[in-house]
Formats: sequence, structure tokens, C-alpha cells
Amino acid sequence: METVISSKTKTVIISPDHPFTIVGERINPTGRKLLAAEMAAGNFDRVVKDALAQVEAGAHILDVNAGIPMADEPGILAETIKLVQGITDVPISIDSSIVAALESGLEAYQGKALLNSVTGEDERLESVLPLVKKYGCAVIGISNDETGISDDPDVRFEVAKKIVERAMDHGIPKEDVIIDPLIMPIGAKRYAGRQAFSILRRIGEELGVNTCCGASNVSFGLPNRGPLNGTFLAMLISNGLTSAITNPIESEIKQAIMVADVMTGNDENCMAWIKANRRPPSAASGAGDRRERRRERRRSRS
Amino acid sequence: METVISSKTKTVIISPDHPFTIVGERINPTGRKLLAAEMAAGNFDRVVKDALAQVEAGAHILDVNAGIPMADEPGILAETIKLVQGITDVPISIDSSIVAALESGLEAYQGKALLNSVTGEDERLESVLPLVKKYGCAVIGISNDETGISDDPDVRFEVAKKIVERAMDHGIPKEDVIIDPLIMPIGAKRYAGRQAFSILRRIGEELGVNTCCGASNVSFGLPNRGPLNGTFLAMLISNGLTSAITNPIESEIKQAIMVADVMTGNDENCMAWIKANRRPPSAASGAGDRRERRRERRRSRS
Repeated sequence: METVISSKTKTVIISPDHPFTIVGERINPTGRKLLAAEMAAGNFDRVVKDALAQVEAGAHILDVNAGIPMADEPGILAETIKLVQGITDVPISIDSSIVAALESGLEAYQGKALLNSVTGEDERLESVLPLVKKYGCAVIGISNDETGISDDPDVRFEVAKKIVERAMDHGIPKEDVIIDPLIMPIGAKRYAGRQAFSILRRIGEELGVNTCCGASNVSFGLPNRGPLNGTFLAMLISNGLTSAITNPIESEIKQAIMVADVMTGNDENCMAWIKANRRPPSAASGAGDRRERRRERRRSRS
Repeated sequence: METVISSKTKTVIISPDHPFTIVGERINPTGRKLLAAEMAAGNFDRVVKDALAQVEAGAHILDVNAGIPMADEPGILAETIKLVQGITDVPISIDSSIVAALESGLEAYQGKALLNSVTGEDERLESVLPLVKKYGCAVIGISNDETGISDDPDVRFEVAKKIVERAMDHGIPKEDVIIDPLIMPIGAKRYAGRQAFSILRRIGEELGVNTCCGASNVSFGLPNRGPLNGTFLAMLISNGLTSAITNPIESEIKQAIMVADVMTGNDENCMAWIKANRRPPSAASGAGDRRERRRERRRSRS
């Protein structure tokens, strides 16, 4: 299964046989008062900084959200998308809960976008899927519906199935639908992790579509969230997750994704890992290498 | 499925619904010249140090191996086991490739031991399984046979199945058989990881027995092995691995196992994670917490 997303000049393939796809989450004013105020005032300096920093850190796609209360979201979203496309070549995930904003984003975007998102609610499906068909983009389908988010993973799977089938009814190829199984905070739902592992496997095996998730919700309320989010992401990847909306600037997350690529065989010859962890002989003193050499010595010595 | 291992005074349950079982690997002279020489000379100071340090670091079971060339392995293994049982209360994994040493270890051990190991070779099965039955211990079955280690995961699964069935023929309850699916170095076998994930799921679903593996072989030849071994272990756990012979003293491995316990729901109320990562208010400056608070501030600020 391959989902192809593109900008004018760059193509990204989301697939279980390609390196894990990182969708940079930072360009989002939700909970970022300062960014919200700046974007509303037409100041995009921070957007530029966040865009370049995330691409530098390894984002393959940038999520762009302009959800600012009392502001012209469709207009600001279109403007932000044009700006980001002007300074980077990575494809964009057009992120809004307002259909009019999604459409104005699609109007402004050059390439094949990822639309974020549609739920399993009939009203949403019937308003968003025609846009997906009209603009020929891909879409993230979130597995909740009119009844909310079910605690029963089988119900969430059925919602995912409904979204894929409804998309196909609209003439959208199923490889252009990416399912977000919705991951609950583990502090509140003890078996949220196990549920995520099994629903991801079912989506891959029974629906044969790609998957995406927000990776940090799981650690809500817990201390030292970096290792929790990073390692959990690797666990999800080993159960079939093929993309995530996350922050590649967080070192634990980036490193865990690199390890996961090695372990799924998608970091061919482990080149990315070796490149990131081997220091040139001159400066052969990377913490990792040093620690490793110490261990080897200890092992053989004692 | 529950595999019960015990010392005189302590019981360990290996199960998908209990915290992951760590079998400390350090008491093993293989590749440790100094330790080998000391053990052969009857000096067990380093064994004592390694035993206490691994228990302190969270080992639930201690693997004890006395494989020293030209030495009286059965005698030294029995002596080492008595010594370790004298200074710790954790159960022991009796580790040897020599049947006579396995038997003298079982003779010396007090409690229900874990025997490490038997392969799928008929000659080994017929010499080791009677010991397992006689002493009522549990055994690790390694999925290779006369033909060696197959590259085909289906063949390795069939060997695992044969070991479980043969054990039952000997009157050994299947919960006393733990399968090691054999994990190959990812640097040499690109899909060693994927194979491990799928064979672990099959063993859990189709054979319904617990599993064990050596966690560090996978990173052989690669730089910065700590994060590779730790994160890979968490990926294996999310696919059903229930125990590993590893080194809990290595921080990346211990942390990844703690995260995995949180994500499988086996760290109830995340208490172990919170205890290990929350600093008392007085010294509320744990790196993790500090980094976390910085992030939160950044998020809300910008």
C-alpha cells in the first residue's frame, strides 16, 4: 500500500516499506498564544522558523493549522500554506476542523496535499470527501463518529472501515485514505497501548491502508514524556503504523523513529543510523560510540 | 499463559499480563577472560558483584553460566548456583550447553529453576526434556535444529512447535516451555526485525507459550547499540515477547523495558514509571521533569 503526497517538486511515499513518515506538528496555533497572535496579525516569522527547523530535523511533511478563535481561518490558512510552500519543498498536511478552511487551503496548495482530517460522522464525510475527490488529495480519517470515541477498539475499527468504504463510494482510491485509530492517554486508559497495537494490525491486514497518529497524547499527565512518546512510537511502528503527526525536533522521538526504521528494514543497510551515529575518525568521540567502546572493553576485560 | 519460576523464598511469574521479566545475563564467563580465570580458580568476588548489581538494577531472574574451556563446568556451575542462592533470593536460569552441567545445576538448585536451554535437535530434546520432567523446572527452547538456524521464520516456528509438542509428550506442561525465536543481527539480515515481530505473534497466538530472547544480538556491528537494543526490545514486547536475557544495568535497556511495561498496561497506574521519574518536590529538578517543564512552557508561550 502506497500513499503518494507531493509538493510542486517533491514526492513523499507513505508505506510500510518506506522509512516512517514524519509529519511536523509545530505549525499549529492551538495552545500557542504567541503564535496565534502573530499569525492573526500577519506576522509569520515564527511559522518560517518552525517550518525550517522541522524540515532540518527530518520532517517529511509539514502540518499547517491556522485554528485561531475569531480570526479568518480560511484566509490565514491559505496565506500560511503559500508562505510555507515558498520557503520549503516538503508537501503539506492541510489541517482544519472547518470545511471552508480545508477548501481554501486546497485552493492555495500546489501539489497533492494530505487533508487533515475527516471523521466517521456522516455529515463530515459528505462535506469533506467531495473535496478530496475534487482536488485529488489524500485524507486522514479519524476513527470516531456521532457516538464519540468508543472505548471498544472493535467499534473504532468499524468506524475506520466505514470511512474507507465511504471514500471508495466517492471514487477515492483507498490508498488515499490514511486512518488515525485515536490513541488514548495511558494514564487514564490502562490498555490504550494494547488496543492501539491490535487495531493498527487489523487496519493493515484487513483494510490494507496506511495509518497515522498523534504520538504524544499517550503520555498525557505522566513525567519524563520524551522517552514514553519516542519508545511508544517505535512500538506502534512495529505493529504497522506508517506515519505520525509529531515533533521531530524532540531528540527522543527522532531517535526512536530512526531505530524503528532500522528494525523494520526500511533504513537500508542501516545507512541513516550509521551516518547519524558514527563520528568521523578525527572526532571519533560521539557519546554513543564512546559508551559503546567502553562497554565492549568492559565486556572483554572483566 | 503463566510460567512460574521460583527460588526458596521468591516466585517470579512470566506472563503477558505481568511486568516484563528481566533475566540478568552478566554471570557468564563467555568472552570475559578475567571472570573465567577467577571462576576457574574458585574466586567468585566478581560473580557476587555482578549478581547484586543486576538485582539492584531490576533483574527478576539471574542467568548463571560456567562455560569455561578445560574446566569442570558441572562442578563450577553447581558451586556458583549455591553461592548466588546464598546472597540473593531471585530465581536462577541454569545456563549450559552441557547436559551433565545442567543436571548438576539442577541438583544444586533450591526451588523451581529455569533451564537454559534445549534446541529442537532430537538428541538434545531426548537428553534435556527428561531432566526438565524429573526436576519439574521450566525450560527455554531455542528454535533451531539439526539443520541449523533457518532464514525462514515459518521453519523456525515449526521447530518451536516441535519443541512444545515434544515437551508435552514428556509430560511437561506447555506453560513450562519458553520459546526463544532466535533474533539475527539486523546489519546482516535486513528483515530480522520484521521476522521477529511476526514469529513472536504466532508463538503467542498459535502455541500460547511465553517467549524469551537475547536482546543485543540484533545490533551486532552497529554503532550506538544501547538505543538500538533498548528500543528494539520495546518493539518485541509490543509483539508479545514476555522475557529477555539482557543487562538491566544498561540504562537504555532498563528505561525501554519500563516504557514497554507502561504501554502494555503491566505497570499498573504507571506507578513504577512515576516513581522512577518524579523527583521529590525538594529536588524537583530531574532532567526528565525539567526538560518536560521547559517543553510545556515553550508550548504555551510561543
